[in-house]
Amino acid sequence: MENSALRHVIEAQQFDLDFMERMFEEADKLRRQVESRNCSDILNTSRELQGKGMFALFYEPSTRTRFSFVDAAQRLGMRVCWTENAKEFSSAIKGETLEDTIRVLCEYFPDVIVMRHHETGAAERAAKVSSVPIINAGDGKGQHPTQALLDIYTIKQCLGRVDDITVMMVGDLANGRTVRSLAYLLAKYKNVRIIFSSPEELAMKDDILQYLERKNVVVEVVNYFWPNYEDIDVIYETRIQKERGSTISEEEAKRFSLTPEKVKGLKPSTIIMHPLPRNDEVPTEIDSNPQAKYFRQAGNGMFIRMALLKWVLHSL
Amino acid sequence: MENSALRHVIEAQQFDLDFMERMFEEADKLRRQVESRNCSDILNTSRELQGKGMFALFYEPSTRTRFSFVDAAQRLGMRVCWTENAKEFSSAIKGETLEDTIRVLCEYFPDVIVMRHHETGAAERAAKVSSVPIINAGDGKGQHPTQALLDIYTIKQCLGRVDDITVMMVGDLANGRTVRSLAYLLAKYKNVRIIFSSPEELAMKDDILQYLERKNVVVEVVNYFWPNYEDIDVIYETRIQKERGSTISEEEAKRFSLTPEKVKGLKPSTIIMHPLPRNDEVPTEIDSNPQAKYFRQAGNGMFIRMALLKWVLHSL
Amino acid sequence: MENSALRHVIEAQQFDLDFMERMFEEADKLRRQVESRNCSDILNTSRELQGKGMFALFYEPSTRTRFSFVDAAQRLGMRVCWTENAKEFSSAIKGETLEDTIRVLCEYFPDVIVMRHHETGAAERAAKVSSVPIINAGDGKGQHPTQALLDIYTIKQCLGRVDDITVMMVGDLANGRTVRSLAYLLAKYKNVRIIFSSPEELAMKDDILQYLERKNVVVEVVNYFWPNYEDIDVIYETRIQKERGSTISEEEAKRFSLTPEKVKGLKPSTIIMHPLPRNDEVPTEIDSNPQAKYFRQAGNGMFIRMALLKWVLHSL
Repeated sequence: MENSALRHVIEAQQFDLDFMERMFEEADKLRRQVESRNCSDILNTSRELQGKGMFALFYEPSTRTRFSFVDAAQRLGMRVCWTENAKEFSSAIKGETLEDTIRVLCEYFPDVIVMRHHETGAAERAAKVSSVPIINAGDGKGQHPTQALLDIYTIKQCLGRVDDITVMMVGDLANGRTVRSLAYLLAKYKNVRIIFSSPEELAMKDDILQYLERKNVVVEVVNYFWPNYEDIDVIYETRIQKERGSTISEEEAKRFSLTPEKVKGLKPSTIIMHPLPRNDEVPTEIDSNPQAKYFRQAGNGMFIRMALLKWVLHSL
Repeated sequence: MENSALRHVIEAQQFDLDFMERMFEEADKLRRQVESRNCSDILNTSRELQGKGMFALFYEPSTRTRFSFVDAAQRLGMRVCWTENAKEFSSAIKGETLEDTIRVLCEYFPDVIVMRHHETGAAERAAKVSSVPIINAGDGKGQHPTQALLDIYTIKQCLGRVDDITVMMVGDLANGRTVRSLAYLLAKYKNVRIIFSSPEELAMKDDILQYLERKNVVVEVVNYFWPNYEDIDVIYETRIQKERGSTISEEEAKRFSLTPEKVKGLKPSTIIMHPLPRNDEVPTEIDSNPQAKYFRQAGNGMFIRMALLKWVLHSL
Repeated sequence: MENSALRHVIEAQQFDLDFMERMFEEADKLRRQVESRNCSDILNTSRELQGKGMFALFYEPSTRTRFSFVDAAQRLGMRVCWTENAKEFSSAIKGETLEDTIRVLCEYFPDVIVMRHHETGAAERAAKVSSVPIINAGDGKGQHPTQALLDIYTIKQCLGRVDDITVMMVGDLANGRTVRSLAYLLAKYKNVRIIFSSPEELAMKDDILQYLERKNVVVEVVNYFWPNYEDIDVIYETRIQKERGSTISEEEAKRFSLTPEKVKGLKPSTIIMHPLPRNDEVPTEIDSNPQAKYFRQAGNGMFIRMALLKWVLHSL
């Protein structure tokens, strides 16, 4: 079995600029079809996918990501079977290894396996033994490459470019896999400047900082959020992930939250992103501000995942 | 976005007699098609629904209600994605608000969202931020409007009318959302008499009693179940909901249970209903009695939900 | 309602040799179609099943078995609705009996109900009240007849015959429903010899031993695994099921494990089977050995279940 020929989606690093451009174009097209409620057009342009099957293996619950993958596949005419919480529900509780689970599922001849797992590196381990493409839908503190792709797509959609921008990532940069994957992708663009703003104990890890240095990305690491960032194009807020062990005080967390006042200080073209779910770091008062793009960003997930499924299944 | 134009299903009060009549006629038609295993007829009369998508967001588990909604949608040719227990499994555990969850799901362009939630008023909150129709599949101690609709449908089906009847609701009237929603709907019919029979601490709440008074429904509130109810047309038994905090003793609960002896005292045309699941308040010896309609009643749920989906999606 | 006319799948005993031969032939055909990714051929030969509906009611989680049933049904063009863990999630927690649950689900007019339950005899109880076919996907320590069928199918596939073979079942024979069901089926073939190898407290139960005696199967019961089994055709390893109460020591368990050394002692035609999931009783070093058939065996599950669905629904 020639695994290397399979189109896995494991980590953000694997995407190059050409690839991303293709995905974004396809996502644009799919969004137009979906927005115009044009089901038959979608099915007509994805004939090869009809009757193919997707297994969605979620070891960690994630309604948002699962729904967007499942709906993406169903819209393309695919069969889908999923588990919501395999960590508790599957043979994992009987001591089965991830490798065995993947090997067994492959014997059912699915066409693609989407997986979310609580351990870093799980997707890569799965890809090593899988006879079908693996799509990483998040692995522990590791990566969440489809999220990174939809983040870049959102920037492109809203700003018209990804080159020549300043992105400030704010909040929990130590535990957030989305900011890690996003940093990898931003490094592929020209003249990108990244400001990492977080409490010291939640700072971006050195491996990413060193990677960005090698890629000549201008990086700034600060332990405050405000003031004086009028030249920022993208604010990427993140949630303090208490479930991954953050023990930051309420007060400290608040320093890295957005407020309507802070938003007023932004230039009008700055966009506000967030991978969601959010707590208080982005108050709901900001939602109606046209600079707030986080719901649009979440919605882009489905279109990017549809495009990725088409690519993975050689229909793009 | 003009939310008011959306056809939400939030509470029983919103249904008027004409609307209910249309739903019942459609449910009759759908039942005939399903009973004759005539799939293609159903699909032919619901062409507009094919390729549309339903998200079923169950924060509280409910196999019965979820299966009937999912199957209803699938029979109509719709795509369906669901969560079994979002309270434990979704971003809710990361502190995401219901409003955010609904906003994100709407960005995936579903055509309808069905939700079951543990908090009263949740469906209304969801409808306020949703860009697609919300169907309330039960919200805490609040309402369960599709259950109320299928209850009325069952009465109509079995008795041939809803006007001029006496309904006795028995058991846990304080915590049961089904009896609340049903009372609202019964009040729309002519010459309906309702007897609320429960332990005092589980009595029907004042808001409903006052509503019924305003609607000129003849109401009787009693704290015993038997004897002497030969003039009753419908006995609507309910389960003591221990999971919602009832602390009634076994002995006290038994006073409000049906027995084969009590059933013998009913006139032959009286029907016995129950929203299910049941415990001992309706012993299984009664199941084979033709007056027992609770399984039929449960089954009516799927047909009513099919009819509602068609209405919500402007196909009826 | 004439239940006796329904084609239930409750226990391995119900299958006779002719029936098994038909299932194996159909499974062979389906595998060829699936392996060649020929969806339309499958749908063309299962026209009667399209639009039919399956409810998969899993009271115990089992990703493997559920995925294979769900995918089997979907490949045949059926609608599917499932629950992953009904024991925790369904009305069962509100005290509903299995019988009531089945009765209600039948009112939704599914065409077949597949169920996995934690109590022995649950499938038979369900079949007694069901108006549609029940397929037992495992009931407690009871039976798992589709597993037994796929086990025999795997032996047939790999050895070319089931008559005239020696099968050694190893490990937890007291708690494993797969070995029980398999023993029943093996007894139907000619000149089969079975060696039961387990720690004494996990020995095969007397009811099976007596059944095999009545069927004139040559049986040997031993409390060691090795050495000297060069005449064995099938080694059927099983996992010590700690979740069902086994309290065997690590050291004792190890005596019944396979090792690469032990495998070297086998004749080249001996095949190694395991119902999976496995722990250490079959080390991964053995996986690449062509005699290891457990992944193939697991995959056979989907094809056998497709064939069974076709039979149950009178399409075979």
